[in-house]
Amino acid sequence: MLVIGENINASNKSVAEAIENRDEQYLVDLAKAQESAGADFIDVNAGSGHGSPEKTTAAIRWLVGIIQAAVDKPLAIDSDSSKVIEAALKEYSGEKLIINSVTAEPARLESIGPLVAEREAWVVALAMGTEGIPALVEERVAACERIMSYLNDLGIKAEQVLFDPLVLPIAVDTSQGLVTLRTIEQIKSRYPDARTVMGLSNVSYGLPKRKLVNRAFLLMAAHAGLDAVIVDPLDSKAMSLIKVADLLTGKDPSCRAYLRAHRKGDIVD
Amino acid sequence: MLVIGENINASNKSVAEAIENRDEQYLVDLAKAQESAGADFIDVNAGSGHGSPEKTTAAIRWLVGIIQAAVDKPLAIDSDSSKVIEAALKEYSGEKLIINSVTAEPARLESIGPLVAEREAWVVALAMGTEGIPALVEERVAACERIMSYLNDLGIKAEQVLFDPLVLPIAVDTSQGLVTLRTIEQIKSRYPDARTVMGLSNVSYGLPKRKLVNRAFLLMAAHAGLDAVIVDPLDSKAMSLIKVADLLTGKDPSCRAYLRAHRKGDIVD
Repeated sequence: MLVIGENINASNKSVAEAIENRDEQYLVDLAKAQESAGADFIDVNAGSGHGSPEKTTAAIRWLVGIIQAAVDKPLAIDSDSSKVIEAALKEYSGEKLIINSVTAEPARLESIGPLVAEREAWVVALAMGTEGIPALVEERVAACERIMSYLNDLGIKAEQVLFDPLVLPIAVDTSQGLVTLRTIEQIKSRYPDARTVMGLSNVSYGLPKRKLVNRAFLLMAAHAGLDAVIVDPLDSKAMSLIKVADLLTGKDPSCRAYLRAHRKGDIVD
Repeated sequence: MLVIGENINASNKSVAEAIENRDEQYLVDLAKAQESAGADFIDVNAGSGHGSPEKTTAAIRWLVGIIQAAVDKPLAIDSDSSKVIEAALKEYSGEKLIINSVTAEPARLESIGPLVAEREAWVVALAMGTEGIPALVEERVAACERIMSYLNDLGIKAEQVLFDPLVLPIAVDTSQGLVTLRTIEQIKSRYPDARTVMGLSNVSYGLPKRKLVNRAFLLMAAHAGLDAVIVDPLDSKAMSLIKVADLLTGKDPSCRAYLRAHRKGDIVD
């Protein structure tokens, strides 16, 4: 399973402050720690609260510059503003990258789709349209179909798309765990060449022992066909279970990666 | 998910000695502890190494007698000898019970099938025939079909059958995790009214951190459609994850069982 390290995100207050204060050391250390812990991509989200559009694009350009200089792993450029993504891409020189994200909203597709096509990037595609996160599997798959159709017309291949089935809290509606898992299955069946990706934390919102619930959901999603996860790579229990998930779904031939991680002391209970 | 407590099994040396010495207190305590920990059934296996057939049937009759007197939960009568099962059933007066187990072997079906029919018991049906555990999903499902066909002819309903997909160690063949999970899916699709059941330990044989691997596999199996598990109910991490699995697969309306277990301090990480 691919690991997208989520830690450099301005929704985290310490990260927001470090970006504001141009605290390069803090952010570079956070990127390097995620790389060492096994992240395949480093997500970078500079937030949008920098006072003016110019300051916001300046923040993401600075952030992308320092992080790509510090690590060998490719970045996931994360923003809900296409202007911010565009500014980040001007700074980013790597060939491999993820653009995070599009939805089925026409405005998002029209602004971000061409950037994905031009850079031959991978793109996270959220299974939703203009009306928020759909409650039903069919509606989420329909949103994925609208996205794929639009992206295909731009010459973007299924292999470049990481569909996020989206996750609503089961504390609000206990059927929502299955809705997400079935959406993954439907997407994998409809687009075998596309990948699926998911964040972990929403499912457990409002419940006690959230990390336990999140990790259990990750294993179920791995069985449903999840290819990538947006996660804290410094969470050694989650990272251990990602290796166990690969082992149990036949993605770790001869158990080599699992046994190597165990020898390094990285498999924790 | 139904929990079948596995602890009273003569393959465990302390249990074998307690049976041999008729150490009632030890075995009754073990049964009560499993009941308190949330077991829905208490498995009882007296082994076969008691010197003579008479001593062996005497051992299971004694064991069934003391355990059913001590707990309110129904028993799973566990033996690979139909003579031992027959002797145990003479002693067992409960209405609800599991007979563990049949396979597609004609001799097993002919000897145990009628006992299941007569007692209107549930029965564990192992997805194998005379040739050992099949390597392929199709062969395991074919064994299940032969079993169901035979049992149906005796008037036994699908609801009475718990199919065990069987588990081979992934350390030997990394595809075997998926073989088991797909067998569960196929059985649930072929026989929606039948249940599925699985033991946890085989999958991780030969690997480090076995319990971690076992628990991860349990969560994947829950998503594949597992209805019951043969497990140590005193393993609080496994029992916590069983509750989380119910939560995430929509089997715990309003998260009530999970929240109640959490308030009791039973959800451990």
